Amino acid sequence: MRRIGIAVNQNKPSALDVTKQLVSLLEAKDAKVLVDSKVADQIGRSDLALDVDKFPDQVDLVFVLGGDGTLLGVARQLAVYDLPILGINLGHLGFLSEAEPEDLPSAVDRVLRGDYHLEKRMMIDASIIRNGQTIHRNIALNDIGIAKGSFGRMVTLSVYVDDMYVDKYSGDGLIISTPTGSTAYSLSCGGPIVSPHINVMVVTPICPHTLTSRPFIVQKDQVIRVEVSATHNDIGITIDGQVGYKGEVNDTIIVRKSPHYTTLIKWQERGFFDVLRQKLHNPN
Amino acid sequence: MRRIGIAVNQNKPSALDVTKQLVSLLEAKDAKVLVDSKVADQIGRSDLALDVDKFPDQVDLVFVLGGDGTLLGVARQLAVYDLPILGINLGHLGFLSEAEPEDLPSAVDRVLRGDYHLEKRMMIDASIIRNGQTIHRNIALNDIGIAKGSFGRMVTLSVYVDDMYVDKYSGDGLIISTPTGSTAYSLSCGGPIVSPHINVMVVTPICPHTLTSRPFIVQKDQVIRVEVSATHNDIGITIDGQVGYKGEVNDTIIVRKSPHYTTLIKWQERGFFDVLRQKLHNPN
Amino acid sequence: MRRIGIAVNQNKPSALDVTKQLVSLLEAKDAKVLVDSKVADQIGRSDLALDVDKFPDQVDLVFVLGGDGTLLGVARQLAVYDLPILGINLGHLGFLSEAEPEDLPSAVDRVLRGDYHLEKRMMIDASIIRNGQTIHRNIALNDIGIAKGSFGRMVTLSVYVDDMYVDKYSGDGLIISTPTGSTAYSLSCGGPIVSPHINVMVVTPICPHTLTSRPFIVQKDQVIRVEVSATHNDIGITIDGQVGYKGEVNDTIIVRKSPHYTTLIKWQERGFFDVLRQKLHNPN
Amino acid sequence: MRRIGIAVNQNKPSALDVTKQLVSLLEAKDAKVLVDSKVADQIGRSDLALDVDKFPDQVDLVFVLGGDGTLLGVARQLAVYDLPILGINLGHLGFLSEAEPEDLPSAVDRVLRGDYHLEKRMMIDASIIRNGQTIHRNIALNDIGIAKGSFGRMVTLSVYVDDMYVDKYSGDGLIISTPTGSTAYSLSCGGPIVSPHINVMVVTPICPHTLTSRPFIVQKDQVIRVEVSATHNDIGITIDGQVGYKGEVNDTIIVRKSPHYTTLIKWQERGFFDVLRQKLHNPN
Repeated sequence: MRRIGIAVNQNKPSALDVTKQLVSLLEAKDAKVLVDSKVADQIGRSDLALDVDKFPDQVDLVFVLGGDGTLLGVARQLAVYDLPILGINLGHLGFLSEAEPEDLPSAVDRVLRGDYHLEKRMMIDASIIRNGQTIHRNIALNDIGIAKGSFGRMVTLSVYVDDMYVDKYSGDGLIISTPTGSTAYSLSCGGPIVSPHINVMVVTPICPHTLTSRPFIVQKDQVIRVEVSATHNDIGITIDGQVGYKGEVNDTIIVRKSPHYTTLIKWQERGFFDVLRQKLHNPN
Repeated sequence: MRRIGIAVNQNKPSALDVTKQLVSLLEAKDAKVLVDSKVADQIGRSDLALDVDKFPDQVDLVFVLGGDGTLLGVARQLAVYDLPILGINLGHLGFLSEAEPEDLPSAVDRVLRGDYHLEKRMMIDASIIRNGQTIHRNIALNDIGIAKGSFGRMVTLSVYVDDMYVDKYSGDGLIISTPTGSTAYSLSCGGPIVSPHINVMVVTPICPHTLTSRPFIVQKDQVIRVEVSATHNDIGITIDGQVGYKGEVNDTIIVRKSPHYTTLIKWQERGFFDVLRQKLHNPN
Repeated sequence: MRRIGIAVNQNKPSALDVTKQLVSLLEAKDAKVLVDSKVADQIGRSDLALDVDKFPDQVDLVFVLGGDGTLLGVARQLAVYDLPILGINLGHLGFLSEAEPEDLPSAVDRVLRGDYHLEKRMMIDASIIRNGQTIHRNIALNDIGIAKGSFGRMVTLSVYVDDMYVDKYSGDGLIISTPTGSTAYSLSCGGPIVSPHINVMVVTPICPHTLTSRPFIVQKDQVIRVEVSATHNDIGITIDGQVGYKGEVNDTIIVRKSPHYTTLIKWQERGFFDVLRQKLHNPN
Repeated sequence: MRRIGIAVNQNKPSALDVTKQLVSLLEAKDAKVLVDSKVADQIGRSDLALDVDKFPDQVDLVFVLGGDGTLLGVARQLAVYDLPILGINLGHLGFLSEAEPEDLPSAVDRVLRGDYHLEKRMMIDASIIRNGQTIHRNIALNDIGIAKGSFGRMVTLSVYVDDMYVDKYSGDGLIISTPTGSTAYSLSCGGPIVSPHINVMVVTPICPHTLTSRPFIVQKDQVIRVEVSATHNDIGITIDGQVGYKGEVNDTIIVRKSPHYTTLIKWQERGFFDVLRQKLHNPN
């Protein structure tokens, strides 16, 4: 019997309705269902409640109801457990979600029949080091940003790849992105598009003061080291644009490929370029 | 007798030495000199001390010792008084300073002989309106920024020019720049270069999420209105990158040409494009 | 009695049908109609035939049936005569056309009632000088391009504004654009958007080899001089992307505001930003 | 005994002098030397003359005296023979040359002692197919461009990667670049920087009319297919910007990784990022 966890972004207007429908569909097919505790009560099924961070012990795969942002959060939370994730899109067209609410019946069918493709997405790992101590460590599916705050003046970031000095970047900061993240914030900063299966990292300067600064590609097994200097401490380090740490002058941030992957459930027939085209041609 | 005020950025290493030298040169030529109170004591001339905000009553023109940043601050402080300003550059090559410390003797000569050219630089005025009330108002020589903080997610800014709807800009924010500011932060964000004598404003999106967003030019007598929406309150409004106000969702920012100008003292023979070329060809 | 000329792009599939319909509508309202000789025969109305270049003597205003490209050609042809032009769009949404074929009856009504607004669009004038002789001279509504051919290596263009040296631009070339042209090729090269009523020129480098090269704005009464150097003669000078002249090393191109304007017929209520938004949000 | 070929760009002013010096240095160390026939006579050593395309039979490695352009040409000519190449830079700082003329004695020493590092640079192969026939085929070390001429209007290129449809690109064209070429023309068009050891291709749109078009990365073992459409035949296909073929509407261009590599002689201690930094910080 398949054991399915359901993680939900309650802020989406249709969240509860879609959750209820999904539970019904899955139970009708004899799947064992567990629902994010924050939502289980609200749909009158507290019998199914389980915190998302307990999913790894009790479920085989996870439906995520929300947008790309919701899926990013669940992906980080479950990164070490290698649970397949299927995104059901409750918002705008996303890059990570594979189904729309109106496809739920067929999505449930395919998942329970095993009629899907698993796509491994590279993740990256950031350590923030202060005075020789690692003070924060986290994993990202999209990107790691090192940037000044809105009142801060320029930051200057010295970047090394495998201990080779690359350059100093002065400006708003830098974004270090996975292939998955290449179509997110990095793209807005002028970074190139990277298909999910190409395991490289992209380092993209954010509004660089030095006009010759350009995005560059780093091989997956290389280690990126960033040293922060600035005349102020209004510096933020962000994980997928969702988790933030206050940075300080002289902090070092080490970014490398994580040993963990996010495993996305994909219907074989829908490709990266098709989604990309839809997003780019409908830019609102 | 010419009455000269001296404003100084004390943080520059050579600030006190250059101030002393300038006072000597001016007094040797019988000019009446007044010195920023914060510095007068330190050079042993408390007899000359005057706060910069009192300069307008007692001086005819102002020497600013520092970098472009120092001059921006003095320019805003003195904006309504139309005092000519001569920048003496204590840092990297700047766009606003006209002389280097080694040129002091000849600069003093020329100023006292009236052998210079006055260049009027357009300024812009920002009002921040919350719940129908103007809660802040300030004037900028370079630019007015409306941007998310380093932990904030996207902001969405609806822009109107003379009450005509232009577009929604989602991303890191917008920068509204004078010609003087067109070579500062706006340039890093992809904005065009505008010579100081062309009285237009430039609206430049900062890392726009909508990839079709582009910088645009607004005529000097047009009024720009920006309405803020976001899912958070990590929004900053900055004046010349130096003064910051916390913004909130539903704030309106009105930007228009100020009736005031910054009047820069320029030696006729050195032009905007010469400085621009030097800066662009030596990008560090 | 209003005398109306009709210029037509025969290559558009609906060109003849729309011309016929327009002639009927105009004649039904007692307007005197003349039709581009190339088309008059084809619609069986050789009695109305007149070459477009003879329109100025015999008509008061001109309907242009085609796309923005057709209108550009007619605008250049009639530039010195100041005849109002109404664009009827037979292709994709354009910036210059004001009506769609389905609006013809109401467009005819408004035009004959005089219920419209005239919008003057700045034009620019290019002279190509070789060995001290002006060998070509033409006028553009959109832009003047100076660029290498597809097999040519880099060109280097030295640019002067009012005889002040701006910089050398090495790369594919330069585009000098009017406000009207700012949303055409210049935009693809990274130039800013300029509303039609702001009389400036935009100089935009095309794929510059020098990464610090940036677009810049030139005042309407300034004169731009471009001097060509290259190691080859595969250089083209284009007018609105439609007329081309072979350039040579050591050619000088002088660009300045033309005394002539293109006068567009506009319904008051449709603005530049509305069209811009539609174009940018539907990028195909 | 080492057998050394010398290829020379005669157009560089110091070409003959440096060739003579190099021959002397090599012969003094008992190397067997052969010199590009076009130059051997001019330095009075017709005894050493050999056409470059015969080098593979008679030499073990090749010195190239010239700039990056010269080296590109030799690299293509010798691509199938896998001969190590040492670039001696007679022009501006290049990415491909490893020594300056003043380093000749030590360069000769190191080469003859075998004290160097071989760096394999990925090449790409282009086939131009017309009416089902491959009409041209060539190999590139930097890039393959498909672009309109200077008088041509837009071209539209449909791009497929491994038979997956990516998108239509309308504008000036596309450039498909190796890592080596990522710092050449592709960079001017907005492409990212790729270190030489990362075996990917970069597809960069040239001045795209569709403003959402962005550079993208393709894995080394993927096949890129480009189908040309346009309303004209002013289309050029270029190899390293040096060899050109006239393209036509309905041509198909297939680009894939070549089985051949260019093998560069590198002193271990000088890295890609060091050269990159020097080039970017001195943009003239």
